[in-house]
Amino acid sequence: MLDKVVIVGVGLIGGSFALGLKAAGAVRRVVGIGREPQAMARALELGIVDEVAASFDTARDADLVLLAAPVAQTGRILAALLPHLGARTVVTDAGSTKSDVVAAAREVLGERIHQFVPGHPIAGSESNGPDAAIATLYRGKKAVLTPLPENADDAVELVAEAWRACGALIHMLSPLEHDRVFAAVSHLPHLLAYALVDDIAAKPHADLLFQYAASGFRDFTRIAGSSPEMWRDISLANQAALLTELDAYLAQLTTLRARLAASDGAALEAVYANAQRARREWIEAIEAGSPPPPPNQEPE
Amino acid sequence: MLDKVVIVGVGLIGGSFALGLKAAGAVRRVVGIGREPQAMARALELGIVDEVAASFDTARDADLVLLAAPVAQTGRILAALLPHLGARTVVTDAGSTKSDVVAAAREVLGERIHQFVPGHPIAGSESNGPDAAIATLYRGKKAVLTPLPENADDAVELVAEAWRACGALIHMLSPLEHDRVFAAVSHLPHLLAYALVDDIAAKPHADLLFQYAASGFRDFTRIAGSSPEMWRDISLANQAALLTELDAYLAQLTTLRARLAASDGAALEAVYANAQRARREWIEAIEAGSPPPPPNQEPE
Repeated sequence: MLDKVVIVGVGLIGGSFALGLKAAGAVRRVVGIGREPQAMARALELGIVDEVAASFDTARDADLVLLAAPVAQTGRILAALLPHLGARTVVTDAGSTKSDVVAAAREVLGERIHQFVPGHPIAGSESNGPDAAIATLYRGKKAVLTPLPENADDAVELVAEAWRACGALIHMLSPLEHDRVFAAVSHLPHLLAYALVDDIAAKPHADLLFQYAASGFRDFTRIAGSSPEMWRDISLANQAALLTELDAYLAQLTTLRARLAASDGAALEAVYANAQRARREWIEAIEAGSPPPPPNQEPE
Repeated sequence: MLDKVVIVGVGLIGGSFALGLKAAGAVRRVVGIGREPQAMARALELGIVDEVAASFDTARDADLVLLAAPVAQTGRILAALLPHLGARTVVTDAGSTKSDVVAAAREVLGERIHQFVPGHPIAGSESNGPDAAIATLYRGKKAVLTPLPENADDAVELVAEAWRACGALIHMLSPLEHDRVFAAVSHLPHLLAYALVDDIAAKPHADLLFQYAASGFRDFTRIAGSSPEMWRDISLANQAALLTELDAYLAQLTTLRARLAASDGAALEAVYANAQRARREWIEAIEAGSPPPPPNQEPE
Protein backbone atom coordinates (compact mmCIF):
# COMPACT_ATOMS: atom_id res chain seq x y z
CA MET A 1 0.00 0.00 0.00
CA LEU A 2 1.40 3.36 -1.05
CA ASP A 3 0.75 6.11 1.47
CA LYS A 4 0.99 9.08 -0.86
CA VAL A 5 1.22 9.38 -4.64
CA VAL A 6 1.70 12.70 -6.44
CA ILE A 7 0.51 12.93 -10.05
CA VAL A 8 1.91 15.74 -12.18
CA GLY A 9 -0.61 16.31 -14.98
CA VAL A 10 -3.98 14.74 -14.21
CA GLY A 11 -5.37 13.97 -17.66
CA LEU A 12 -6.21 10.63 -19.27
CA ILE A 13 -2.89 8.98 -18.40
CA GLY A 14 -2.23 10.39 -14.93
CA GLY A 15 -5.90 10.31 -13.96
CA SER A 16 -6.36 6.69 -15.02
CA PHE A 17 -3.26 5.72 -13.01
CA ALA A 18 -4.77 7.40 -9.92
CA LEU A 19 -8.15 5.73 -10.44
CA GLY A 20 -6.53 2.34 -11.08
CA LEU A 21 -4.53 2.55 -7.84
CA LYS A 22 -7.61 3.62 -5.90
CA ALA A 23 -9.79 0.87 -7.36
CA ALA A 24 -7.17 -1.66 -6.27
CA GLY A 25 -6.91 -0.17 -2.77
CA ALA A 26 -3.23 0.33 -3.46
CA VAL A 27 -2.92 3.95 -2.34
CA ARG A 28 -4.04 5.95 0.67
CA ARG A 29 -3.87 9.46 -0.77
CA VAL A 30 -3.42 10.92 -4.26
CA VAL A 31 -2.33 14.53 -4.72
CA GLY A 32 -2.60 16.23 -8.10
CA ILE A 33 -0.51 19.05 -9.40
CA GLY A 34 -0.81 20.76 -12.76
CA ARG A 35 -0.78 23.99 -14.70
CA GLU A 36 -4.47 24.16 -15.57
CA PRO A 37 -6.55 25.11 -12.52
CA GLN A 38 -9.81 24.06 -14.22
CA ALA A 39 -8.54 20.59 -15.03
CA MET A 40 -7.23 20.18 -11.49
CA ALA A 41 -10.55 21.31 -10.01
CA ARG A 42 -12.30 18.82 -12.25
CA ALA A 43 -9.93 16.01 -11.18
CA LEU A 44 -10.77 16.82 -7.54
CA GLU A 45 -14.49 16.93 -8.29
CA LEU A 46 -14.33 13.55 -10.04
CA GLY A 47 -12.50 12.00 -7.06
CA ILE A 48 -9.44 11.23 -9.15
CA VAL A 49 -7.27 13.13 -6.67
CA ASP A 50 -7.90 13.73 -2.97
CA GLU A 51 -6.13 17.05 -2.95
CA VAL A 52 -4.71 19.59 -5.38
CA ALA A 53 -1.32 21.06 -4.48
CA ALA A 54 -0.05 24.44 -5.60
CA SER A 55 3.61 23.59 -5.02
CA PHE A 56 5.93 20.64 -5.50
CA ASP A 57 6.55 20.82 -1.75
CA THR A 58 3.76 18.21 -1.50
CA ALA A 59 6.21 15.67 -2.96
CA ARG A 60 8.45 15.86 0.12
CA ASP A 61 6.76 12.91 1.85
CA ALA A 62 5.42 11.10 -1.25
CA ASP A 63 6.21 7.45 -1.95
CA LEU A 64 5.84 7.95 -5.66
CA VAL A 65 5.63 10.86 -8.10
CA LEU A 66 4.28 10.17 -11.62
CA LEU A 67 5.07 12.69 -14.36
CA ALA A 68 2.18 12.51 -16.83
CA ALA A 69 2.77 15.76 -18.71
CA PRO A 70 4.09 16.10 -22.31
CA VAL A 71 7.64 14.70 -22.56
CA ALA A 72 9.12 18.05 -23.62
CA GLN A 73 8.28 19.39 -20.12
CA THR A 74 10.19 16.67 -18.26
CA GLY A 75 13.31 18.75 -17.53
CA ARG A 76 11.33 21.78 -16.38
CA ILE A 77 9.12 19.72 -14.06
CA LEU A 78 12.03 17.80 -12.56
CA ALA A 79 13.90 21.07 -11.95
CA ALA A 80 10.89 22.42 -10.05
CA LEU A 81 10.53 19.15 -8.16
CA LEU A 82 14.18 18.63 -7.19
CA PRO A 83 14.38 21.08 -4.25
CA HIS A 84 11.38 19.31 -2.67
CA LEU A 85 12.31 15.74 -3.51
CA GLY A 86 12.35 13.54 -0.40
CA ALA A 87 15.21 11.09 -0.05
CA ARG A 88 12.96 8.03 -0.20
CA THR A 89 10.59 9.25 -2.92
CA VAL A 90 10.64 7.40 -6.26
CA VAL A 91 9.86 9.37 -9.42
CA THR A 92 8.59 7.79 -12.62
CA ASP A 93 7.04 9.02 -15.85
CA ALA A 94 4.61 7.92 -18.56
CA GLY A 95 6.26 9.48 -21.61
CA SER A 96 6.09 7.93 -25.08
CA THR A 97 9.85 8.36 -25.59
CA LYS A 98 12.56 7.36 -23.17
CA SER A 99 16.07 8.33 -24.30
CA ASP A 100 15.27 12.04 -24.27
CA VAL A 101 13.45 11.78 -20.95
CA VAL A 102 16.42 9.98 -19.41
CA ALA A 103 18.83 12.59 -20.80
CA ALA A 104 16.73 15.43 -19.37
CA ALA A 105 16.42 13.64 -16.03
CA ARG A 106 20.18 13.00 -15.81
CA GLU A 107 20.92 16.62 -16.54
CA VAL A 108 18.51 17.95 -13.94
CA LEU A 109 18.74 15.33 -11.20
CA GLY A 110 22.50 14.70 -11.27
CA GLU A 111 23.44 12.20 -8.58
CA ARG A 112 19.80 11.80 -7.58
CA ILE A 113 19.05 10.15 -10.93
CA HIS A 114 18.85 6.88 -8.98
CA GLN A 115 15.41 8.00 -7.77
CA PHE A 116 14.04 8.22 -11.32
CA VAL A 117 12.64 5.02 -12.89
CA PRO A 118 11.54 5.77 -16.47
CA GLY A 119 8.33 4.17 -17.72
CA HIS A 120 5.75 4.11 -20.51
CA PRO A 121 2.30 2.54 -20.20
CA ILE A 122 1.12 1.28 -23.62
CA ALA A 123 -2.45 2.47 -23.38
CA GLY A 124 -4.34 5.53 -24.41
CA SER A 125 -7.31 6.87 -26.25
CA GLU A 126 -8.07 9.78 -28.53
CA SER A 127 -9.91 11.46 -25.64
CA ASN A 128 -8.05 13.50 -23.13
CA GLY A 129 -8.36 15.38 -19.84
CA PRO A 130 -9.56 14.18 -16.44
CA ASP A 131 -13.02 13.35 -17.76
CA ALA A 132 -11.49 10.69 -20.00
CA ALA A 133 -9.70 8.94 -17.12
CA ILE A 134 -10.93 5.45 -16.21
CA ALA A 135 -9.75 2.94 -13.60
CA THR A 136 -9.49 0.14 -16.16
CA LEU A 137 -7.38 1.90 -18.81
CA TYR A 138 -4.28 -0.17 -18.05
CA ARG A 139 -5.92 -3.52 -17.38
CA GLY A 140 -4.21 -6.18 -19.47
CA LYS A 141 -2.03 -3.56 -21.19
CA LYS A 142 1.75 -3.44 -21.13
CA ALA A 143 3.64 -1.02 -18.91
CA VAL A 144 7.21 -0.77 -20.16
CA LEU A 145 9.87 0.21 -17.61
CA THR A 146 13.34 1.19 -18.81
CA PRO A 147 15.31 1.10 -15.52
CA LEU A 148 18.69 2.83 -15.24
CA PRO A 149 21.88 1.25 -13.89
CA GLU A 150 21.63 3.66 -10.93
CA ASN A 151 18.13 2.53 -9.89
CA ALA A 152 17.89 0.36 -6.77
CA ASP A 153 15.85 -2.82 -7.23
CA ASP A 154 13.42 -1.57 -4.60
CA ALA A 155 12.72 1.58 -6.56
CA VAL A 156 12.02 -0.35 -9.78
CA GLU A 157 9.83 -2.80 -7.90
CA LEU A 158 7.80 0.01 -6.30
CA VAL A 159 6.97 1.42 -9.73
CA ALA A 160 6.26 -2.05 -11.17
CA GLU A 161 3.93 -2.84 -8.26
CA ALA A 162 1.97 0.36 -8.83
CA TRP A 163 1.39 -0.49 -12.50
CA ARG A 164 0.51 -4.08 -11.63
CA ALA A 165 -2.08 -2.73 -9.20
CA CYS A 166 -3.63 -0.94 -12.19
CA GLY A 167 -3.77 -4.30 -13.98
CA ALA A 168 -0.80 -3.72 -16.29
CA LEU A 169 1.77 -6.32 -17.35
CA ILE A 170 5.34 -5.22 -16.70
CA HIS A 171 7.88 -5.36 -19.52
CA MET A 172 11.51 -4.26 -19.29
CA LEU A 173 13.52 -2.66 -22.12
CA SER A 174 16.48 -0.35 -22.25
CA PRO A 175 15.60 3.28 -23.14
CA LEU A 176 17.27 2.82 -26.54
CA GLU A 177 15.45 -0.45 -27.28
CA HIS A 178 12.20 1.17 -26.24
CA ASP A 179 12.66 4.09 -28.60
CA ARG A 180 13.63 1.90 -31.54
CA VAL A 181 10.66 -0.39 -31.01
CA PHE A 182 8.12 2.43 -30.75
CA ALA A 183 9.63 4.33 -33.66
CA ALA A 184 8.71 1.31 -35.81
CA VAL A 185 5.30 0.29 -34.47
CA SER A 186 3.89 3.62 -33.31
CA HIS A 187 5.78 6.78 -34.25
CA LEU A 188 6.25 5.92 -37.93
CA PRO A 189 2.61 4.89 -38.47
CA HIS A 190 1.49 8.19 -36.93
CA LEU A 191 3.74 10.14 -39.28
CA LEU A 192 2.49 8.10 -42.27
CA ALA A 193 -1.15 8.64 -41.40
CA TYR A 194 -0.71 12.38 -40.85
CA ALA A 195 1.19 12.60 -44.16
CA LEU A 196 -1.54 10.82 -46.11
CA VAL A 197 -4.38 12.97 -44.80
CA ASP A 198 -2.37 16.16 -45.31
CA ASP A 199 -1.45 15.02 -48.83
CA ILE A 200 -5.09 14.41 -49.74
CA ALA A 201 -6.33 17.59 -48.04
CA ALA A 202 -3.86 19.64 -50.11
CA LYS A 203 -5.17 18.38 -53.47
CA PRO A 204 -7.48 20.65 -55.47
CA HIS A 205 -10.16 17.93 -55.57
CA ALA A 206 -9.85 17.09 -51.85
CA ASP A 207 -13.61 17.40 -51.30
CA LEU A 208 -14.31 14.81 -53.99
CA LEU A 209 -11.71 12.47 -52.52
CA PHE A 210 -12.98 12.71 -48.95
CA GLN A 211 -16.50 12.10 -50.25
CA TYR A 212 -15.50 8.59 -51.36
CA ALA A 213 -13.19 7.70 -48.48
CA ALA A 214 -14.68 4.75 -46.62
CA SER A 215 -14.08 2.57 -43.56
CA GLY A 216 -10.63 1.34 -44.62
CA PHE A 217 -9.45 4.95 -44.90
CA ARG A 218 -11.08 5.80 -41.61
CA ASP A 219 -9.21 3.07 -39.73
CA PHE A 220 -5.93 3.71 -41.54
CA THR A 221 -6.03 7.39 -40.56
CA ARG A 222 -7.53 7.08 -37.08
CA ILE A 223 -4.16 7.91 -35.47
CA ALA A 224 -4.03 11.13 -37.54
CA GLY A 225 -6.73 12.35 -35.16
CA SER A 226 -4.14 12.48 -32.36
CA SER A 227 -2.75 15.68 -30.83
CA PRO A 228 -0.38 17.45 -33.27
CA GLU A 229 1.57 19.07 -30.42
CA MET A 230 2.13 15.76 -28.66
CA TRP A 231 3.25 14.03 -31.86
CA ARG A 232 5.49 16.93 -32.85
CA ASP A 233 7.24 16.47 -29.49
CA ILE A 234 7.45 12.69 -29.85
CA SER A 235 8.79 12.98 -33.42
CA LEU A 236 11.54 15.35 -32.32
CA ALA A 237 12.29 13.48 -29.10
CA ASN A 238 12.77 10.22 -31.01
CA GLN A 239 14.24 11.85 -34.12
CA ALA A 240 17.14 9.45 -34.75
CA ALA A 241 15.16 6.21 -34.45
CA LEU A 242 12.22 7.67 -36.38
CA LEU A 243 14.51 8.77 -39.23
CA THR A 244 15.98 5.26 -39.37
CA GLU A 245 12.52 3.70 -39.63
CA LEU A 246 11.30 6.29 -42.10
CA ASP A 247 14.31 5.70 -44.36
CA ALA A 248 13.74 1.94 -44.29
CA TYR A 249 10.10 2.52 -45.19
CA LEU A 250 10.95 4.95 -47.99
CA ALA A 251 13.33 2.34 -49.42
CA GLN A 252 10.57 -0.28 -49.20
CA LEU A 253 8.07 2.02 -50.94
CA THR A 254 10.59 2.85 -53.66
CA THR A 255 11.09 -0.86 -54.33
CA LEU A 256 7.34 -1.42 -54.43
CA ARG A 257 6.96 1.52 -56.81
CA ALA A 258 9.47 -0.04 -59.21
CA ARG A 259 7.61 -3.35 -59.07
CA LEU A 260 4.31 -1.62 -59.75
CA ALA A 261 5.79 0.40 -62.62
CA ALA A 262 7.20 -2.84 -64.09
CA SER A 263 3.76 -4.52 -63.77
CA ASP A 264 5.47 -7.22 -61.71
CA GLY A 265 2.32 -8.73 -60.23
CA ALA A 266 4.10 -11.69 -58.65
CA ALA A 267 6.49 -9.43 -56.74
CA LEU A 268 3.66 -7.17 -55.55
CA GLU A 269 1.63 -10.16 -54.47
CA ALA A 270 4.61 -11.58 -52.57
CA VAL A 271 4.84 -8.40 -50.48
CA TYR A 272 1.08 -8.24 -49.92
CA ALA A 273 0.88 -11.93 -49.02
CA ASN A 274 3.82 -11.72 -46.63
CA ALA A 275 2.22 -8.73 -44.92
CA GLN A 276 -1.16 -10.44 -44.69
CA ARG A 277 0.42 -13.58 -43.20
CA ALA A 278 2.57 -11.65 -40.70
CA ARG A 279 -0.41 -9.60 -39.59
CA ARG A 280 -2.64 -12.67 -39.24
CA GLU A 281 0.01 -14.41 -37.11
CA TRP A 282 0.33 -11.29 -34.97
CA ILE A 283 -3.44 -11.06 -34.43
CA GLU A 284 -3.59 -14.78 -33.63
CA ALA A 285 -0.78 -14.37 -31.10
CA ILE A 286 -2.65 -11.49 -29.45
CA GLU A 287 -5.89 -13.44 -29.34
CA ALA A 288 -4.15 -16.56 -27.99
CA GLY A 289 -2.57 -14.47 -25.22
CA SER A 290 -3.62 -15.15 -21.64
CA PRO A 291 -6.52 -13.00 -20.46
CA PRO A 292 -5.47 -9.92 -18.53
CA PRO A 293 -5.00 -10.52 -14.80
CA PRO A 294 -7.48 -8.82 -12.49
CA PRO A 295 -6.13 -5.64 -10.90
CA ASN A 296 -4.07 -5.95 -7.74
CA GLN A 297 -2.87 -9.44 -8.60
CA GLU A 298 0.48 -10.51 -9.84
CA PRO A 299 0.58 -11.71 -13.42
CA GLU A 300 1.93 -15.25 -13.77
CA MET B 1 -39.65 -5.52 -60.13
CA LEU B 2 -36.93 -7.44 -61.94
CA ASP B 3 -38.04 -10.81 -63.22
CA LYS B 4 -34.65 -12.51 -63.38
CA VAL B 5 -31.22 -11.52 -62.15
CA VAL B 6 -28.08 -13.55 -62.83
CA ILE B 7 -25.16 -13.19 -60.42
CA VAL B 8 -21.73 -14.29 -61.62
CA GLY B 9 -19.71 -15.04 -58.48
CA VAL B 10 -21.91 -15.42 -55.41
CA GLY B 11 -19.61 -14.32 -52.58
CA LEU B 12 -19.89 -11.40 -50.19
CA ILE B 13 -20.55 -8.81 -52.90
CA GLY B 14 -22.75 -10.76 -55.30
CA GLY B 15 -24.56 -12.60 -52.51
CA SER B 16 -25.35 -9.42 -50.61
CA PHE B 17 -26.73 -7.85 -53.80
CA ALA B 18 -29.03 -10.88 -54.24
CA LEU B 19 -30.17 -10.79 -50.61
CA GLY B 20 -30.71 -7.02 -50.74
CA LEU B 21 -32.92 -7.31 -53.84
CA LYS B 22 -34.88 -10.15 -52.28
CA ALA B 23 -35.37 -8.34 -48.97
CA ALA B 24 -36.78 -5.39 -50.90
CA GLY B 25 -39.07 -7.58 -52.99
CA ALA B 26 -37.34 -6.18 -56.05
CA VAL B 27 -36.63 -9.45 -57.86
CA ARG B 28 -38.64 -12.56 -58.73
CA ARG B 29 -35.79 -15.00 -59.35
CA VAL B 30 -32.03 -14.98 -58.77
CA VAL B 31 -29.77 -17.40 -60.63
CA GLY B 32 -26.19 -17.94 -59.54
CA ILE B 33 -23.28 -19.00 -61.66
CA GLY B 34 -19.71 -19.54 -60.56
CA ARG B 35 -16.59 -21.67 -60.78
CA GLU B 36 -16.70 -23.17 -57.29
CA PRO B 37 -19.46 -25.81 -57.01
CA GLN B 38 -19.25 -25.85 -53.19
CA ALA B 39 -19.77 -22.10 -52.92
CA MET B 40 -22.66 -22.27 -55.37
CA ALA B 41 -24.29 -25.12 -53.43
CA ARG B 42 -23.90 -23.11 -50.26
CA ALA B 43 -25.46 -20.03 -51.89
CA LEU B 44 -28.43 -22.18 -52.89
CA GLU B 45 -28.68 -23.69 -49.40
CA LEU B 46 -28.63 -20.21 -47.81
CA GLY B 47 -31.42 -19.03 -50.11
CA ILE B 48 -29.19 -16.39 -51.71
CA VAL B 49 -29.96 -17.80 -55.16
CA ASP B 50 -33.02 -19.71 -56.28
CA GLU B 51 -31.15 -21.74 -58.83
CA VAL B 52 -27.57 -22.52 -59.84
CA ALA B 53 -26.84 -22.54 -63.56
CA ALA B 54 -24.07 -24.50 -65.25
CA SER B 55 -24.03 -22.35 -68.38
CA PHE B 56 -24.33 -18.69 -69.29
CA ASP B 57 -27.33 -19.70 -71.38
CA THR B 58 -29.40 -18.79 -68.30
CA ALA B 59 -28.64 -15.13 -69.06
CA ARG B 60 -30.65 -15.25 -72.28
CA ASP B 61 -33.87 -14.01 -70.64
CA ALA B 62 -32.33 -12.15 -67.68
CA ASP B 63 -33.14 -8.50 -66.95
CA LEU B 64 -29.80 -7.96 -65.28
CA VAL B 65 -26.48 -9.76 -65.00
CA LEU B 66 -24.08 -8.71 -62.21
CA LEU B 67 -20.41 -9.65 -62.54
CA ALA B 68 -19.08 -10.02 -58.98
CA ALA B 69 -15.88 -11.92 -59.70
CA PRO B 70 -12.29 -10.54 -59.50
CA VAL B 71 -11.80 -7.72 -62.04
CA ALA B 72 -9.03 -9.58 -63.90
CA GLN B 73 -11.66 -12.13 -65.01
CA THR B 74 -14.01 -9.57 -66.58
CA GLY B 75 -12.94 -10.18 -70.18
CA ARG B 76 -13.08 -13.95 -69.87
CA ILE B 77 -16.54 -13.89 -68.27
CA LEU B 78 -17.95 -11.45 -70.82
CA ALA B 79 -16.57 -13.56 -73.66
CA ALA B 80 -18.37 -16.62 -72.25
CA LEU B 81 -21.53 -14.59 -71.70
CA LEU B 82 -21.68 -12.84 -75.08
CA PRO B 83 -23.08 -15.72 -77.20
CA HIS B 84 -25.99 -16.03 -74.72
CA LEU B 85 -26.60 -12.34 -74.10
CA GLY B 86 -30.22 -11.41 -74.72
CA ALA B 87 -30.92 -8.19 -76.61
CA ARG B 88 -32.71 -6.54 -73.68
CA THR B 89 -30.42 -7.80 -70.89
CA VAL B 90 -28.34 -5.21 -69.01
CA VAL B 91 -24.94 -6.25 -67.65
CA THR B 92 -23.17 -4.49 -64.78
CA ASP B 93 -20.24 -5.24 -62.51
CA ALA B 94 -18.99 -4.55 -58.99
CA GLY B 95 -15.27 -4.21 -59.63
CA SER B 96 -12.99 -1.91 -57.62
CA THR B 97 -11.43 -0.46 -60.79
CA LYS B 98 -13.29 0.82 -63.81
CA SER B 99 -10.98 1.91 -66.68
CA ASP B 100 -9.59 -1.60 -67.11
CA VAL B 101 -13.03 -3.18 -66.80
CA VAL B 102 -14.40 -0.83 -69.44
CA ALA B 103 -11.45 -1.54 -71.75
CA ALA B 104 -11.97 -5.30 -71.38
CA ALA B 105 -15.72 -4.94 -71.92
CA ARG B 106 -15.25 -2.81 -75.05
CA GLU B 107 -12.83 -5.31 -76.51
CA VAL B 108 -15.10 -8.30 -75.89
CA LEU B 109 -18.56 -6.82 -76.39
CA GLY B 110 -17.84 -4.62 -79.39
CA GLU B 111 -21.02 -2.89 -80.56
CA ARG B 112 -22.97 -4.47 -77.70
CA ILE B 113 -20.99 -2.40 -75.19
CA HIS B 114 -24.16 -0.31 -74.82
CA GLN B 115 -25.58 -3.16 -72.70
CA PHE B 116 -22.76 -2.86 -70.14
CA VAL B 117 -23.16 -0.29 -67.32
CA PRO B 118 -20.00 -0.33 -65.15
CA GLY B 119 -20.45 0.00 -61.38
CA HIS B 120 -18.71 -0.23 -58.02
CA PRO B 121 -20.52 -0.52 -54.69
CA ILE B 122 -18.43 1.05 -51.91
CA ALA B 123 -19.00 -1.59 -49.29
CA GLY B 124 -17.24 -4.70 -48.17
CA SER B 125 -15.80 -6.57 -45.28
CA GLU B 126 -12.75 -8.68 -44.59
CA SER B 127 -14.95 -11.77 -44.68
CA ASN B 128 -15.79 -13.45 -47.94
CA GLY B 129 -17.85 -16.17 -49.54
CA PRO B 130 -21.63 -16.70 -49.53
CA ASP B 131 -21.73 -17.15 -45.74
CA ALA B 132 -20.56 -13.54 -45.35
CA ALA B 133 -23.38 -12.15 -47.54
CA ILE B 134 -26.01 -10.02 -45.78
CA ALA B 135 -29.08 -8.19 -47.12
CA THR B 136 -28.03 -4.92 -45.44
CA LEU B 137 -24.43 -4.67 -46.72
CA TYR B 138 -25.23 -1.80 -49.09
CA ARG B 139 -27.69 0.10 -46.93
CA GLY B 140 -26.64 3.74 -46.73
CA LYS B 141 -23.45 3.01 -48.71
CA LYS B 142 -22.50 4.57 -52.02
CA ALA B 143 -22.88 2.68 -55.29
CA VAL B 144 -20.81 4.42 -57.95
CA LEU B 145 -21.91 3.98 -61.55
CA THR B 146 -19.59 5.04 -64.37
CA PRO B 147 -21.95 4.99 -67.37
CA LEU B 148 -20.61 4.93 -70.91
CA PRO B 149 -21.66 7.26 -73.73
CA GLU B 150 -23.21 4.21 -75.44
CA ASN B 151 -25.48 3.32 -72.51
CA ALA B 152 -29.18 4.09 -72.92
CA ASP B 153 -30.69 6.03 -70.02
CA ASP B 154 -33.03 3.11 -69.36
CA ALA B 155 -30.11 0.72 -68.92
CA VAL B 156 -28.37 3.02 -66.43
CA GLU B 157 -31.61 3.55 -64.55
CA LEU B 158 -32.26 -0.19 -64.31
CA VAL B 159 -28.89 -0.72 -62.62
CA ALA B 160 -29.35 2.34 -60.38
CA GLU B 161 -32.79 1.10 -59.31
CA ALA B 162 -31.38 -2.31 -58.36
CA TRP B 163 -28.73 -0.71 -56.13
CA ARG B 164 -31.30 1.66 -54.64
CA ALA B 165 -33.44 -1.35 -53.80
CA CYS B 166 -30.46 -2.64 -51.78
CA GLY B 167 -30.45 0.68 -49.91
CA ALA B 168 -27.45 2.20 -51.70
CA LEU B 169 -27.03 5.85 -52.69
CA ILE B 170 -26.22 6.29 -56.37
CA HIS B 171 -23.21 8.40 -57.38
CA MET B 172 -22.03 8.99 -60.93
CA LEU B 173 -18.39 9.39 -61.99
CA SER B 174 -16.52 8.77 -65.21
CA PRO B 175 -14.36 5.61 -65.19
CA LEU B 176 -11.23 7.78 -65.12
CA GLU B 177 -12.49 9.95 -62.25
CA HIS B 178 -13.47 6.84 -60.36
CA ASP B 179 -10.03 5.30 -60.69
CA ARG B 180 -8.23 8.49 -59.68
CA VAL B 181 -10.42 8.93 -56.61
CA PHE B 182 -10.03 5.35 -55.40
CA ALA B 183 -6.29 5.33 -56.11
CA ALA B 184 -6.01 8.11 -53.53
CA VAL B 185 -8.45 7.05 -50.82
CA SER B 186 -8.32 3.27 -51.08
CA HIS B 187 -5.64 1.73 -53.31
CA LEU B 188 -2.72 3.80 -51.98
CA PRO B 189 -3.62 3.22 -48.30
CA HIS B 190 -3.75 -0.52 -48.97
CA LEU B 191 -0.30 -0.45 -50.57
CA LEU B 192 1.07 1.64 -47.66
CA ALA B 193 -0.34 -0.70 -45.04
CA TYR B 194 0.97 -3.81 -46.79
CA ALA B 195 4.38 -2.14 -47.16
CA LEU B 196 4.59 -1.26 -43.47
CA VAL B 197 3.73 -4.73 -42.22
CA ASP B 198 6.09 -6.37 -44.72
CA ASP B 199 8.84 -3.91 -43.75
CA ILE B 200 8.46 -4.74 -40.06
CA ALA B 201 8.10 -8.49 -40.66
CA ALA B 202 11.40 -8.49 -42.58
CA LYS B 203 13.41 -6.97 -39.71
CA PRO B 204 15.59 -9.29 -37.62
CA HIS B 205 13.80 -8.18 -34.44
CA ALA B 206 10.30 -8.46 -35.93
CA ASP B 207 9.04 -10.56 -33.01
CA LEU B 208 10.03 -7.87 -30.52
CA LEU B 209 8.37 -5.20 -32.65
CA PHE B 210 5.07 -7.05 -33.06
CA GLN B 211 5.06 -7.70 -29.31
CA TYR B 212 4.71 -3.97 -28.66
CA ALA B 213 2.41 -3.08 -31.54
CA ALA B 214 -0.87 -1.82 -30.07
CA SER B 215 -4.32 -0.68 -31.16
CA GLY B 216 -3.11 2.22 -33.32
CA PHE B 217 -0.98 -0.21 -35.34
CA ARG B 218 -3.86 -2.66 -35.52
CA ASP B 219 -6.22 -0.11 -37.06
CA PHE B 220 -3.57 1.37 -39.36
CA THR B 221 -2.79 -2.07 -40.78
CA ARG B 222 -6.30 -3.55 -40.80
CA ILE B 223 -6.49 -3.26 -44.59
CA ALA B 224 -3.26 -5.27 -44.87
CA GLY B 225 -5.44 -8.22 -43.86
CA SER B 226 -7.16 -8.05 -47.28
CA SER B 227 -6.71 -10.59 -50.06
CA PRO B 228 -3.23 -10.28 -51.68
CA GLU B 229 -4.49 -11.65 -55.01
CA MET B 230 -7.36 -9.17 -55.17
CA TRP B 231 -5.08 -6.23 -54.32
CA ARG B 232 -2.41 -7.36 -56.75
CA ASP B 233 -5.08 -7.24 -59.46
CA ILE B 234 -6.40 -3.85 -58.34
CA SER B 235 -2.86 -2.40 -58.14
CA LEU B 236 -2.09 -3.53 -61.68
CA ALA B 237 -5.52 -2.61 -63.06
CA ASN B 238 -5.18 0.93 -61.69
CA GLN B 239 -1.43 1.18 -62.21
CA ALA B 240 -1.24 4.67 -63.72
CA ALA B 241 -3.43 6.44 -61.14
CA LEU B 242 -1.83 4.50 -58.28
CA LEU B 243 1.68 5.47 -59.44
CA THR B 244 0.60 9.11 -59.56
CA GLU B 245 -0.73 8.97 -56.00
CA LEU B 246 2.27 7.01 -54.75
CA ASP B 247 4.68 9.55 -56.26
CA ALA B 248 2.82 12.43 -54.64
CA TYR B 249 2.95 10.61 -51.31
CA LEU B 250 6.66 9.80 -51.67
CA ALA B 251 7.32 13.50 -52.33
CA GLN B 252 5.29 14.41 -49.24
CA LEU B 253 7.20 11.90 -47.09
CA THR B 254 10.53 13.16 -48.42
CA THR B 255 9.58 16.71 -47.45
CA LEU B 256 8.51 15.56 -44.00
CA ARG B 257 11.78 13.64 -43.64
CA ALA B 258 13.76 16.81 -44.35
CA ARG B 259 11.72 18.72 -41.78
CA LEU B 260 12.27 16.02 -39.19
CA ALA B 261 16.00 15.86 -39.93
CA ALA B 262 16.17 19.65 -39.56
CA SER B 263 14.31 19.44 -36.22
CA ASP B 264 11.75 21.84 -37.67
CA GLY B 265 9.04 21.26 -35.09
CA ALA B 266 6.81 24.07 -36.36
CA ALA B 267 6.73 22.62 -39.89
CA LEU B 268 6.02 19.10 -38.61
CA GLU B 269 3.27 20.39 -36.38
CA ALA B 270 1.72 22.32 -39.28
CA VAL B 271 1.39 19.08 -41.28
CA TYR B 272 0.07 17.11 -38.33
CA ALA B 273 -2.39 19.86 -37.39
CA ASN B 274 -3.65 20.24 -40.95
CA ALA B 275 -4.19 16.49 -41.17
CA GLN B 276 -5.98 16.37 -37.82
CA ARG B 277 -8.25 19.25 -38.82
CA ALA B 278 -9.03 17.80 -42.27
CA ARG B 279 -9.82 14.41 -40.79
CA ARG B 280 -12.03 15.91 -38.08
CA GLU B 281 -13.99 17.88 -40.67
CA TRP B 282 -14.37 14.75 -42.77
CA ILE B 283 -15.65 12.72 -39.81
CA GLU B 284 -18.04 15.53 -38.85
CA ALA B 285 -19.35 15.66 -42.42
CA ILE B 286 -19.95 11.89 -42.36
CA GLU B 287 -21.71 12.07 -39.03
CA ALA B 288 -23.82 15.02 -40.11
CA GLY B 289 -24.88 13.11 -43.24
CA SER B 290 -28.52 12.19 -43.62
CA PRO B 291 -29.37 8.75 -42.29
CA PRO B 292 -29.45 6.04 -44.95
CA PRO B 293 -32.81 5.65 -46.69
CA PRO B 294 -34.72 2.44 -46.03
CA PRO B 295 -34.33 -0.12 -48.79
CA ASN B 296 -36.63 0.08 -51.78
CA GLN B 297 -37.15 3.81 -51.40
CA GLU B 298 -35.70 6.59 -53.44
CA PRO B 299 -33.16 8.76 -51.68
CA GLU B 300 -34.14 12.42 -51.58
